[in-house]
Amino acid sequence: MIVDKKNVGAGYASGEVGGAAFGGTRLVLIAGPCTVESREQMLEIACAVKEAGASMLRGGAFKPRSSPYAFQGLCERGLEILAEARERTGLPVVTEVLESSQLPVVAAVADMLQIGSRNMHNSVLLRDAGACGKPVLLKRGMSATIQEYLCAAEYVLDAGSRRVVLCERGIRTFETATRFTLDLSAVPLLKEKTWLPVIVDPSHGTGHASLVPAMARAAVACGADGVMVEVHAHPESALCDGEQSETPENFYRLVSELRAVAEAVGRTV
Amino acid sequence: MIVDKKNVGAGYASGEVGGAAFGGTRLVLIAGPCTVESREQMLEIACAVKEAGASMLRGGAFKPRSSPYAFQGLCERGLEILAEARERTGLPVVTEVLESSQLPVVAAVADMLQIGSRNMHNSVLLRDAGACGKPVLLKRGMSATIQEYLCAAEYVLDAGSRRVVLCERGIRTFETATRFTLDLSAVPLLKEKTWLPVIVDPSHGTGHASLVPAMARAAVACGADGVMVEVHAHPESALCDGEQSETPENFYRLVSELRAVAEAVGRTV
Amino acid sequence: MIVDKKNVGAGYASGEVGGAAFGGTRLVLIAGPCTVESREQMLEIACAVKEAGASMLRGGAFKPRSSPYAFQGLCERGLEILAEARERTGLPVVTEVLESSQLPVVAAVADMLQIGSRNMHNSVLLRDAGACGKPVLLKRGMSATIQEYLCAAEYVLDAGSRRVVLCERGIRTFETATRFTLDLSAVPLLKEKTWLPVIVDPSHGTGHASLVPAMARAAVACGADGVMVEVHAHPESALCDGEQSETPENFYRLVSELRAVAEAVGRTV
Amino acid sequence: MIVDKKNVGAGYASGEVGGAAFGGTRLVLIAGPCTVESREQMLEIACAVKEAGASMLRGGAFKPRSSPYAFQGLCERGLEILAEARERTGLPVVTEVLESSQLPVVAAVADMLQIGSRNMHNSVLLRDAGACGKPVLLKRGMSATIQEYLCAAEYVLDAGSRRVVLCERGIRTFETATRFTLDLSAVPLLKEKTWLPVIVDPSHGTGHASLVPAMARAAVACGADGVMVEVHAHPESALCDGEQSETPENFYRLVSELRAVAEAVGRTV
Repeated sequence: MIVDKKNVGAGYASGEVGGAAFGGTRLVLIAGPCTVESREQMLEIACAVKEAGASMLRGGAFKPRSSPYAFQGLCERGLEILAEARERTGLPVVTEVLESSQLPVVAAVADMLQIGSRNMHNSVLLRDAGACGKPVLLKRGMSATIQEYLCAAEYVLDAGSRRVVLCERGIRTFETATRFTLDLSAVPLLKEKTWLPVIVDPSHGTGHASLVPAMARAAVACGADGVMVEVHAHPESALCDGEQSETPENFYRLVSELRAVAEAVGRTV
Repeated sequence: MIVDKKNVGAGYASGEVGGAAFGGTRLVLIAGPCTVESREQMLEIACAVKEAGASMLRGGAFKPRSSPYAFQGLCERGLEILAEARERTGLPVVTEVLESSQLPVVAAVADMLQIGSRNMHNSVLLRDAGACGKPVLLKRGMSATIQEYLCAAEYVLDAGSRRVVLCERGIRTFETATRFTLDLSAVPLLKEKTWLPVIVDPSHGTGHASLVPAMARAAVACGADGVMVEVHAHPESALCDGEQSETPENFYRLVSELRAVAEAVGRTV
Repeated sequence: MIVDKKNVGAGYASGEVGGAAFGGTRLVLIAGPCTVESREQMLEIACAVKEAGASMLRGGAFKPRSSPYAFQGLCERGLEILAEARERTGLPVVTEVLESSQLPVVAAVADMLQIGSRNMHNSVLLRDAGACGKPVLLKRGMSATIQEYLCAAEYVLDAGSRRVVLCERGIRTFETATRFTLDLSAVPLLKEKTWLPVIVDPSHGTGHASLVPAMARAAVACGADGVMVEVHAHPESALCDGEQSETPENFYRLVSELRAVAEAVGRTV
Repeated sequence: MIVDKKNVGAGYASGEVGGAAFGGTRLVLIAGPCTVESREQMLEIACAVKEAGASMLRGGAFKPRSSPYAFQGLCERGLEILAEARERTGLPVVTEVLESSQLPVVAAVADMLQIGSRNMHNSVLLRDAGACGKPVLLKRGMSATIQEYLCAAEYVLDAGSRRVVLCERGIRTFETATRFTLDLSAVPLLKEKTWLPVIVDPSHGTGHASLVPAMARAAVACGADGVMVEVHAHPESALCDGEQSETPENFYRLVSELRAVAEAVGRTV
């Protein structure tokens, strides 16, 4: 398989995404709200996380929701706002694509396409995303084994892409005190098996803002190439995932904590 | 939500699918190979399961596979073969659709669209399938809670459809002696919460042909409206899922076992 | 291993327990309260389940509880009450033993020793129970694989006993709509691997009285040698597990349902 | 409950165990073989881990094994060897106790009693260990929720003890690439809920020696008060758990890695 560690060098083009480079010594810190709610909300957060040291912006325009009656995102308008946030901050943007027909419109704005946990087994989307030329952030399915996860990445690579980044974001277990169980052992395990960069999303992985800093530090300590953190200027009134969002102040503090841990393991922020 | 049990009658049009009726006294027995491999293979199995008492045919034309290098199905040619099998046997056909762009071609042949476990969270596909007019067999996601499963069905219903059938097919657990853990308690639980018919797939649920008859009987005993069983004339040489496929002879015997259990719970086969 | 199916006959002495025989054509129906609360409570339930057709009584005297501050059972006084209930009804009694030091006092009263899910890995207790001469009802650990479960039974057999009955009682999974996930596929699977009788506890397995009848029927349909059902005359005021207890009236109806399913699979009640 | 964070100070006597102090700024590094195999083996490892910077010795004398036919430990002889290893190195010793009747003999030697994952629900053992006066290292049950885990600790505290240390050691999930899934989010979560010290066992948690260093670093980064690592001079010929054991050389390197991470989070080794 192309993903195999032994193929490093051969296929590995570059983890470079609009100025941020995945897989090098410097960690990639992706930050932003779960979902783009308004121009004001997104720009406020974008400027704050840029200031704090983020290297990339996140924000959902098309949202996958369990219920058809939940807020589904601002869609195209959300993409426009993300483009403005990028222009304002200079930070590259990653945002989710839910199905192949959305690829042209999302790829026109995004620096990196996110394929979410719920779509990790969607082979059609994996192939089409791989063929479109944009880097792909592929999140682990919530009940996907490591082997299945690598096979999903292989779909993207087999379609021609060489810029795929993996993201551990928590798996389904019996434990209910956290939203999911963040499987950090996936980080060193994936590093043994594949040359693909690996980052961690402690926000979805735990579901609680108070646990995010500790798990972000742990992610860096065990070898992750970056973290993806939900930040919201007003978590208590967020339309989505407020309970797992950091305030800009907390994110600022987190970056400094990550800097210390990164240095302890020979990386930088 | 439209799926709620209290809405029975209001929204419930009919579980009728090309002669087979889901949710009535008579059970629906769906049988056929995991995947359509050839005209000869499909017709042989179709005639055998018709003879044995099946009320509906199954067979995959577009296959979702973990690896991009595994056999992905005969695609359009597979659909043609399914149409011929229907003509030959008079049995309606259910087959899987993997993404919205395939809907026209699949819906042109299928009597019922299957949305598989890996796509249960694919809200775009759920909506488009619900809008296309065909009945939908919606399999439970392998790590979906009952609540998430009902929300997925709601996407189909909210798009205009009233003909959705649920299918328990096993969930992911720590147990490795079976392929998945068939969660039969989902059957009475779903029956308490929704008016939608519920069937069971013991083939994927267990992964072992020797366990399928016992679990099919159990499904009927706990109130399922039908079962979906993989049958292959030559399981040892099947391209896919041979180890969980029944021979026609075993399926014939299984139908008679199900008849006895059905009568014990006030149903018929 | 002694548990292996191929050793049937050699080691298999008898599933006979004080008049009830496990593993024969006739199913064993064990019924009673989660815990012995008082003489009046236990005798009322014992007479009611005897009347309804139960073949064995259950009731906890020593209770394993998650919290040290929850009701821990009537202990020795509970055993005396169980002895009186047996005398009154003629039904043999199974009750739980929590550790080796309790064995003499529990074995002096019980016809069968229950080793609960939380003690399935307690090798000291397994050995001592196996050596004491009483039949053992060994419940599956809530996260035990089938292989580990058989190894636990082997501890009892290796200590000299030949009268062990297995009991599937639900495993831990991500699903929260039920208390545990009743893994009924364990029944035919265990039947393939071992000569030991296998029963099912749908009360703990589901945690909801409304789901128990369906799952008890399913257990019989897939080949279980019996079921163990919690019955309480006043579930709403039970000290423990009231929400999963059947009333005597419902148990009476359940026995008649089980009779019909048993006949459908060549068994009797 | 006594375990509640709000009771810190009131109940918290001291995390001091024979020279090692749990819960302070300095981390506790427990190292040693899975099981005591011989005098030579134990002394060699004990000297090596002392040299490398370990603050406490581990080693099993009484081993809980899934199969009755697997090596069950050297028992009393193992305890004698542990006592000699302590004398030789000056390091305090933690070793497992399997049941209450072993308490006198184990407590006569051990500086700290380990209650293993399989006994976390064994309330009798929890109480008796709590009453015996020795510090207790209580491992999380492999399918225990955080709430159940705290209740288990409460049994020990309620019996009079105030010296309990918690240990996350991996939970059962669907993932098979690792032996268990190390749930590191349990560390900050437990720190929020209780005043008890929390350590991590990455050896059992992952089952692979190559993953242990990364996960030990992550444990320290997320706030653990120590780690417990299996070390064997000759892992390839270990009687038990060789595949998850570090060599002394690797452990030496690991200690220096942990020193760097500890400093990054304001701790020392």
